[in-house]
Amino acid sequence: MREEFVLINVRPNGEAAKDMVIRDGRIAEIVAHGSRPHAEGTPIVDGEGLLVLPGLVDAHTHLDKTLLGMPWYRNDVGTELTDLIENERAMKRVLGIDPARQSATQIELSVANGTSHIRTHVDIDTQYGLAGLEGVVASRERYRDIVDIEIVAFPQSGMLIRPGTEALMDRAMREGADVVGGLDPSGVDRDPKGHLDTIFAMAERHGKPVDIHLHEPDALGVFAIELIVERTKALAMADRVTVSHGFCLGMLADKPLARLGGMMAEAGVHLMAKGGAASARPPVLDLMEMGINICSGSDGVRDTWQPFGNADMLDRAAIVSQRNDFINDVHIELALRMCTYGGARTMALEGYGLEPGCDATFVLVRAETPADAVASRPVRRAVYRKGIAVAKDGALFAA
Amino acid sequence: MREEFVLINVRPNGEAAKDMVIRDGRIAEIVAHGSRPHAEGTPIVDGEGLLVLPGLVDAHTHLDKTLLGMPWYRNDVGTELTDLIENERAMKRVLGIDPARQSATQIELSVANGTSHIRTHVDIDTQYGLAGLEGVVASRERYRDIVDIEIVAFPQSGMLIRPGTEALMDRAMREGADVVGGLDPSGVDRDPKGHLDTIFAMAERHGKPVDIHLHEPDALGVFAIELIVERTKALAMADRVTVSHGFCLGMLADKPLARLGGMMAEAGVHLMAKGGAASARPPVLDLMEMGINICSGSDGVRDTWQPFGNADMLDRAAIVSQRNDFINDVHIELALRMCTYGGARTMALEGYGLEPGCDATFVLVRAETPADAVASRPVRRAVYRKGIAVAKDGALFAA
Repeated sequence: MREEFVLINVRPNGEAAKDMVIRDGRIAEIVAHGSRPHAEGTPIVDGEGLLVLPGLVDAHTHLDKTLLGMPWYRNDVGTELTDLIENERAMKRVLGIDPARQSATQIELSVANGTSHIRTHVDIDTQYGLAGLEGVVASRERYRDIVDIEIVAFPQSGMLIRPGTEALMDRAMREGADVVGGLDPSGVDRDPKGHLDTIFAMAERHGKPVDIHLHEPDALGVFAIELIVERTKALAMADRVTVSHGFCLGMLADKPLARLGGMMAEAGVHLMAKGGAASARPPVLDLMEMGINICSGSDGVRDTWQPFGNADMLDRAAIVSQRNDFINDVHIELALRMCTYGGARTMALEGYGLEPGCDATFVLVRAETPADAVASRPVRRAVYRKGIAVAKDGALFAA
Repeated sequence: MREEFVLINVRPNGEAAKDMVIRDGRIAEIVAHGSRPHAEGTPIVDGEGLLVLPGLVDAHTHLDKTLLGMPWYRNDVGTELTDLIENERAMKRVLGIDPARQSATQIELSVANGTSHIRTHVDIDTQYGLAGLEGVVASRERYRDIVDIEIVAFPQSGMLIRPGTEALMDRAMREGADVVGGLDPSGVDRDPKGHLDTIFAMAERHGKPVDIHLHEPDALGVFAIELIVERTKALAMADRVTVSHGFCLGMLADKPLARLGGMMAEAGVHLMAKGGAASARPPVLDLMEMGINICSGSDGVRDTWQPFGNADMLDRAAIVSQRNDFINDVHIELALRMCTYGGARTMALEGYGLEPGCDATFVLVRAETPADAVASRPVRRAVYRKGIAVAKDGALFAA
C-alpha cells in the first residue's frame, strides 16, 4: 500500500488548488493543480477541489470512561467536582463502563471525524488500579494503524490523599503511559508542593512530559501555575509541560494575566483550553499573543459528568470560537489551529503538517475556507493516515 | 388529507409508549400503546418507539439576512455593535442578500429540523425601507402550510436617530408585521424614554405585542428593563412584551437580580435567552424560578455578523444547557422547554402541545429521553404539522 499516488485538485489549508504527490506515506511534492503531468502509471485520486486540513488533534480527552453507545445515563448528580468524581468512580462498576470497549467506540468516532492524534487521560486510582490503562492500551494497539494515541496517567481521585495511587501511577508509566498527569494540587490533593514535586519527579524518572488538570480559581490557580513554571524551568522541561483548563487565567485583570502568561510563555508551558462555556474563560487570543502554545480537546464525551460531546474537533474549534467571540475569519482560523498545529506542538508530533516531507495524514472536506469548515462542520469526505484512506464520508473503512 | 390515523408506539415527551389518534389535524386521543384496538380501516403509522416532542419554537431569529446557501463571506469586521450594523447594511447591497430567497433557505432548514413556529425580526430602515418585510411576507405565504411565522418590525439601524424609520415601522405594522420591535433605547437610539414611548404607543395603536433587543450592560440595561416593566404594567400588556437577550441580567448580584426578575415576572415580561457564550449570561434557571417565562432562538444564522448557526432548536437547547452548566436531565429538559413551551407562550400559540385537543404538530426522533435528544441531536425522523408529515429524515417533502 505504501506506493505513490497523486491527489489532484485539493486546497491545502484553503490555498489555491494543488496537486499533492504522496509517496511512501508522506507528502513528497506539492505543485499547482495541473501545472505538470504526472508520471505515467501513477494512480490519480481526484480531490474535487476539496479543502485539505492536517489531521485533527484531540489533545485532551478521556477515552476510558465515555458512555458513547451505552444506554442513556440519567444524571442526578450535583455540580461539585468531588461529587462528580465520587459518582463516576461508583458508576464505573454499576454501569459496567469497560475501558477497552468504550475507548474503541470513541476512537472510531474520532477517526471518522478526521482526528489523527489523541492525547487521552486515563484514570489511575486505588479502586480500579490499572484497569483503565490496560483497556486503553489494548485499544491503542488495536487501532494503531489509523490513529496515534498518547496516554496520560491521570490521578482523577487524588494522589497524595489516596495512599497507593503514586505507586500505581509509577507502574502505569512503566506499563504503557506516555505522560504523567496531575490534578488540582491544592483543591484535590491538599498539598500543592507535595503533589507537584511528586509528579515532576516521576516525569524526570521516566523521561516523560507532564499534563496537569487545573480547575483551581483565582489566586489559588495562579499559585499552582507559578509552582508549575518554577519546576518546568528547574528541570529544563520547556515544551514538555501542559496546563489543562487553567480556568484561573480567565479570572485575572490584564496586568496579572500578562505577568502569568509571560511566565508560562518563557518557560514553554502549553495551555489546553476547551472553550467550555460554564467555566471561566482563559482569553486564548491574548495568551497566544503572549507566545503561549495552546491546544484543545474534546474532554469528556458523553460521560457521567455530562452528556454532551461528539469527539469532533471541528465542532470543538466552533465551540472555542463562540466562547471567545471569534467572529471573523482570522480568529476562527486561530481556533482551528488550536485543534491542529497547537495540539501537534503540545504532543511534540513529528512529521505533522501539510508541507512536503510531512506524513500524508490529513482530512478532506467540502468547504470554501478553513473558517467555513469550522462554521459548517461538513461531513469528512476522506480521512488519510500516512497515505492510506482510513475513513470516507464520515464512516471508517471496515477495520 | 385531514382524515384520521393512529400513530402507534410513540413516547410523547419521553413517556411510556402511547398510541396517538390524529383526527382533522389535531390530537384526538392518547392511549397506552396497544391498550385498545383501533377502528377498522383507520390507517396506522408505526412510530417505532420514537420520542415525540412538540414542534420546536424558534422565538428569535433574523430570516431576512442569513447568508445560508450563499458563497462564504469573509468577515473582517470589528466586534463593535455599531460597526456590525453599518457593515451589514452595506453588505446587503454588495452581496445581494435577497430577503425572500434567504428567508426561504432558512425556513426550509428550520422545518427540516423540526421547527414549527418562528418569530423573526425583520430589519426596517430608511435605506431599504420595507424590502426585508416584503421578502419575508412572501416566504411566510409560500410556506404557510408547513410553518407559522410571526414577523417583528425591527429598527436594526436605530429609530429616533434615523428620521423616517418610525413612519416605516408604522407602515410595516399595517403591511404584515405582527410585533413591534425595539433596540437598545439608550445605546443605539440615545433616548430611552422616547424610544420606548414610541414603540409602546405603536403597539397600542396596532393592538400588537412588543419584542425589544436589549444588549445594554449593567445599570443601563437595568434602567431599560425598569422602563419596559413600567410601560407593560401601565398598558396592561402582561404576556405581550419580550426582552430579547437582556445581557444585563447576567451582570447582577443576587439581590438586584431578584428585584429586577421579580418585577419582570410580576409584569408578565418574557425573556429570550440564546445562551451565547461571548456575552453575559442571564441565569435562566434562577429567572425561571422567579416565574419568568423564557424562550430561545437561533438569532443570526450565518450572517455578516458571524458565521455560526444551523437553525436547529435542539442544537440551541444544547447551547443553552452548556452555557448554563446544565448537566443533569432535569436542567437539560428545562433548556429544551425554552425551545418548545417557552417559545409557545411567548408567541401566545393556540393549540400547542402534546395533549388531546392540541394541533398534531410535532417531531419524532430516535432518542431515549428528551435530554438525550438535546445531547445527541439526532436526525429528525419525521416532522408533522397539523397531522400532515412535512419532513422526513431531516429533509422536507418536496413543496
